[in-house]
Formats: sequence, C-alpha cells, structure tokens
Amino acid sequence: MSKNYYCIIMAGGVGSRFWPLSKTQKPKQFLDILGTGKTLLQQTYERFEQVIPSENIYIVSNKIYKELIEEQLPGIQNHQILLEPAMRNTAPCIAYATFKIMAKDPDASIVVAPSDHLILKEEIFLKNIREGLDFVSKSNNLLTLGIKPTRPETGYGYIQVKEGQILKNGAIAEVKTFTEKPSIEIAKIFFESGEFYWNSGIFLWKGTSIVDAFNAHLEEVSMKFSAGNDVYFTDNEEAFIEEVYPTCKNISIDYGVMEKADNVYVLCAEFEWSDLGTWGSLYEKLSKDESLNAVNRKVFLYDSSNNLINLPEGKIAVVQGLNDFIVVESEDTLLICRKGEEQRIKHFVNDVRLEYGKD
Amino acid sequence: MSKNYYCIIMAGGVGSRFWPLSKTQKPKQFLDILGTGKTLLQQTYERFEQVIPSENIYIVSNKIYKELIEEQLPGIQNHQILLEPAMRNTAPCIAYATFKIMAKDPDASIVVAPSDHLILKEEIFLKNIREGLDFVSKSNNLLTLGIKPTRPETGYGYIQVKEGQILKNGAIAEVKTFTEKPSIEIAKIFFESGEFYWNSGIFLWKGTSIVDAFNAHLEEVSMKFSAGNDVYFTDNEEAFIEEVYPTCKNISIDYGVMEKADNVYVLCAEFEWSDLGTWGSLYEKLSKDESLNAVNRKVFLYDSSNNLINLPEGKIAVVQGLNDFIVVESEDTLLICRKGEEQRIKHFVNDVRLEYGKD
Repeated sequence: MSKNYYCIIMAGGVGSRFWPLSKTQKPKQFLDILGTGKTLLQQTYERFEQVIPSENIYIVSNKIYKELIEEQLPGIQNHQILLEPAMRNTAPCIAYATFKIMAKDPDASIVVAPSDHLILKEEIFLKNIREGLDFVSKSNNLLTLGIKPTRPETGYGYIQVKEGQILKNGAIAEVKTFTEKPSIEIAKIFFESGEFYWNSGIFLWKGTSIVDAFNAHLEEVSMKFSAGNDVYFTDNEEAFIEEVYPTCKNISIDYGVMEKADNVYVLCAEFEWSDLGTWGSLYEKLSKDESLNAVNRKVFLYDSSNNLINLPEGKIAVVQGLNDFIVVESEDTLLICRKGEEQRIKHFVNDVRLEYGKD
Repeated sequence: MSKNYYCIIMAGGVGSRFWPLSKTQKPKQFLDILGTGKTLLQQTYERFEQVIPSENIYIVSNKIYKELIEEQLPGIQNHQILLEPAMRNTAPCIAYATFKIMAKDPDASIVVAPSDHLILKEEIFLKNIREGLDFVSKSNNLLTLGIKPTRPETGYGYIQVKEGQILKNGAIAEVKTFTEKPSIEIAKIFFESGEFYWNSGIFLWKGTSIVDAFNAHLEEVSMKFSAGNDVYFTDNEEAFIEEVYPTCKNISIDYGVMEKADNVYVLCAEFEWSDLGTWGSLYEKLSKDESLNAVNRKVFLYDSSNNLINLPEGKIAVVQGLNDFIVVESEDTLLICRKGEEQRIKHFVNDVRLEYGKD
C-alpha cells in the first residue's frame, strides 16, 4: 500500500430518486439502503481502506452533511472532510480535493469515486484499483473504470474504446469517446458491438496528470484552487473555500475534462457494479421471495408480486393484490408508485416540496 | 322528553373489518372514522341526548373499554357504564342493561342501539325514535327500525312485513320474519318486492315487554339477570356481573328473542343509515374527489382512482398508479388491499395476531 496513494470519495449528492427513503436531510449515501448494516458511504470508505492508507482518504461533501460524515466515519480526521459551501457538480469538487492533496504530496496518485454505488466481487474491485493505480502512477494518462455491459441499459453513460477492441477483463485501452445516456435503440447497438463500456464514474490519475488536464481544459477552475496552495490544511482553508467555491461554474468532470482530454484510458473492470440510481436498479440487486417481492422486513403479502417494499423498523404491514409497485415508508412519508413510473418520483418530490417546504 | 325513556347503547364490538384503524385496543365505535371531529360513540350519545334524558342513557361495553368511554363521554356517571367481563353477543348485553333499568324504573320505555352506525338526516331519525317510543309505551309490542333498501345489499339482514304491505315512511307494520344476510339473487328479489326492510339493529320496547319476551324465549338469561335486582346500582353490582355474565350463552337478541316472538313490529324509517360494516360501506358514505378517491387528508395522487385512503395526521403521502384500493395506516400498521378483497381483512388480522400476539 503506497503512501502516495490517495482517494477522493464524492459524497455531496442530494438525489431525490430514492425518495422518501433518501431525503435532502439524509441522502442515499448516508443510508443503509441495501440492509447490510452499513451505509453506502461506510461501505465505500472501508472498501478503499484496504488499498489506500486511511489518512489519505478524503470525503468531499456539502457542508450540511458534516455531522453525518463524522457520525458514520468516526475514525476520520477533520482535514479529511472537505466541505462544499455550494453544489457545483463534480469538476469543482475534484479540483478542490486534488489541489489540497497536491499541496501536501506532489507525488500523489489518486482514485476518485462516488460514495453511493454498489460494488460486488470486492476482491476483483481491489485488484482493478491496484492495477489502475500502478498504471497511472507510471504514466501521465487519465484512467477510468469501464464496466462490461450485461444489458442494453439506457440509464448509464458509455465509454467507447479506440480501434473497436473487445477488451479482456482487466485490460486497459485508449478511449475514443464518452457518450451520454443512449436511447434504447442506441443502447442495443452499444451492447452488441462490444466496444462500449459503462462509465462507472470511478477515475484514477496522478495528481500532476489531472492538474495538467484542469489547466488545459478548465483553467478558470484550476486557477481558483491553485490560489489556495498556502491555505490548505490551515485554519484559513474554510474561509478560502467559502469565498472561492461558490464562484466556480457548475460542470461535471466528464464534460469539463474527460471528454476533452486526449490521454484518457479505460480499464475493463471485472467486478459487479450498479450506480443504484433508481428504486428499479436497487430492486434488481436485492434478494427476492418466490413471488419476486423484495422486502426489507416481515410483510404479510397476499396475491402480490414483483414489488419493492421498504418499511421502517417495527412497522406491521399487510399488502394484498399489489403487483409491480414500489412501496416505501420513511418517518412521516409514504410512497406508493408503479415500478415503471419511478422516474416521475423527482416530480412528485417537487410537488411535496412546493406544498410543505420540505421533502 | 319523558323521564321514563331510556337508551341502551351497545359499544362492546371488537370487529376487525376496519383494521388497522380499528384494533382490539380501540375498535371502530371509539374512532372518528368519518373525520367529523367526533367518534361514532360520541355521535350516537349526542344524538340520543336530544330525545332521552342524559342520565337515562346507558353504555354497555367490554370492561377493557371503560377508560375510553369515560374519556369520550366525560359527562357520564359511573352507573351509566355497564361493563361486560366477557363477550356474549347482544342478548346477555341487553338483558343486563334491561334488568338494571327495570330495577330503577318499572315504567321504562327503552331504545336499544348500536354505537357504531352512521345516521344521516338526524331530525327524521329523532322523529322516528319519538314515534317508536310513543308506540311501544302504549302497547306490549316489540318494535324494530327497518330501513327501506336502496340497493340489493347482501351485507345486511332483512325484515319481512306481513301481508306484503309496502309501507309508507314512518308507518308501523307487523313483522312476518327476520332473515339472515341473503345471496345476491335473493337480495334482488327482496329489493324488488318492497316488503323487505334492512334490519338496523335498533330496537324499541317497554321494559315489561322485553322482560316478558326474555322470560318466554330466553328464560335462562332472564333468570340470571333478574337475580340481580337487589344489587344493581350498589357496590355489589360489579362482583355479581363478574360472576354471572360469563356463564351466559353467546346469543344475539335477533336469534334469541326477535325471531321467536310473535308481537314484533317494524317502523319504516326514513333516515339514511349505514352499519359502516366494512371499508367499502364507509367509502360509499365519504366525500370523494373527481377521481372518486376518498382521502381523509392531503395526499399527492397521480393516475389514481376509486381508492379509500386513510392516514394519520402529519403523514405525507404520494400515491401513483393505484386504482380500487384501500390504503390505511394507523400507528405502527399499514394496510394495502384491493377494495374487492376487503372481506379477507379479518383473516389478514388473524395472521398478524398469530405472528405478533397483537393486532
């Protein structure tokens, strides 16, 4: 485990697609959404601890989640929690963490990862991370982890490799292009071609490589954060970030850097992955009864199938005649929604916010 | 308002058909199931107060509901609450209250009524009660209130009048027979014939008339309670009832007395009535939105129709794509059940009781 290896865990998301379990006050990454006894953030942190020194793991999140992070990761030190005073998407988030790490260790090699994804086959994941860190530490390339598609998924972005290679597991190839979420027709073509990989949002690079890329493609952002080199790890860091961060433009690392850089590679990852982006994708990953109901605790089910039911502890529930529904109760909120209509949940949440001023 | 008029309100039911709103610990009569701000028991009591002296209104219920009755009817005196130590159906319940009233007032005329029914057009109800009390106080007949059917309902018992009369509103006729709940084919014949009336379970008689009827048709019950003539309204009443009541057989007043007596009359009532026996019958009586959803508070509804939704205060609910369902949440319990399957709720409740030892 190299002392120059670092990890940036992005934990600032406030998605409403898992409402009402995930709410603004406690979004998905802070929940034990899989019922394993650990939150997604805790799982992510403990996964990286096996390959990266604990003290080199940084959490970037909105400042309203400071207490949640301290509570869920009790061993973490103050300087490892980077607090965003505003939401500005992934590019400013990564730039802040990168320039802070570089102020301490110019030889850093860094993994950037979301905090709220599902990773199965962890040993292979760790192997891929080690291989990736080894690759980037010996070159100036930017690396992303690509997942071999198992279905023509329309909910993910895709990465196309150059020269139409079909990669072996663990192989690394040059990226031709990043694509947005495709239509189902396009997704089928991607899936069958073999040269497209799901974009996992997990990136690896040397600190110097990504700083060069920021300088080349998002200079205004890199200028803002390089100006803080003297304040990182000091009492003035917070005030500096409070001032600078909100002035950054709202832009993703994919759009701002990865799609523009010409030194991007993809590692064909072998582990099982889901971004757990929707109730439907969670349903796919949960264990189910013989009627294909995924329930998180005892429910009295009659004539009911293909439901995802998530209820708080102590709730007694009888469900009869319900098929293909999402039923979620959390504290003061109850959601009953057809599985096929779950993309509308964010609109429902907006209606609730308009009425009650909260979700 | 005659000082010899009395009322016996039966409030001992523990039906599970309104589960989970109605539970063993707090059944339907103690709930504000219509959302009016008053429980069904309170509504029943206040309705009779307009035609019967308050101090002559007696509540008979299971002893586990003593506190609920005192809480909901704060003006009531101790001797007006008659507590059953065991459930024994309506005949022993009515016999107990009758012999107690007769020990105080041998000239009593008595109305017996359930505590958990819905009465609309209250002025007409009161008029019918006055007319009925006048009729029974001047004769030795037993009178029941019959409701003119508005549909071929299979959930009610029917009363057939003699000589195939079609009664005018408010008219009184001799009863030919009491019938059990009919099949739909029979109910249609009853409905079309015009000589059948819904059995409302509201009875009127002189105390002497019903005592005579008990003596004639249920002598073992009348002997038990007449033996208590000296203890009613004394400190020994409770101990006497504790001993005697559980030894009574479990039998209804309809089966034990009314069907056997030959001096039974029916008053053709003009008010609107429902026994509120099921969620479906409640749904019929509730006001509904343009999609025919009956909800007891703000619910965010999308693509949903014909639902009955009853949620506790403060619950935020989003319901999408649900049609013809009953959704009820109460404290720690959630029920989602198709409207057409509501007769199975009592079986669901049994399953819950077997698992948790409570409902």
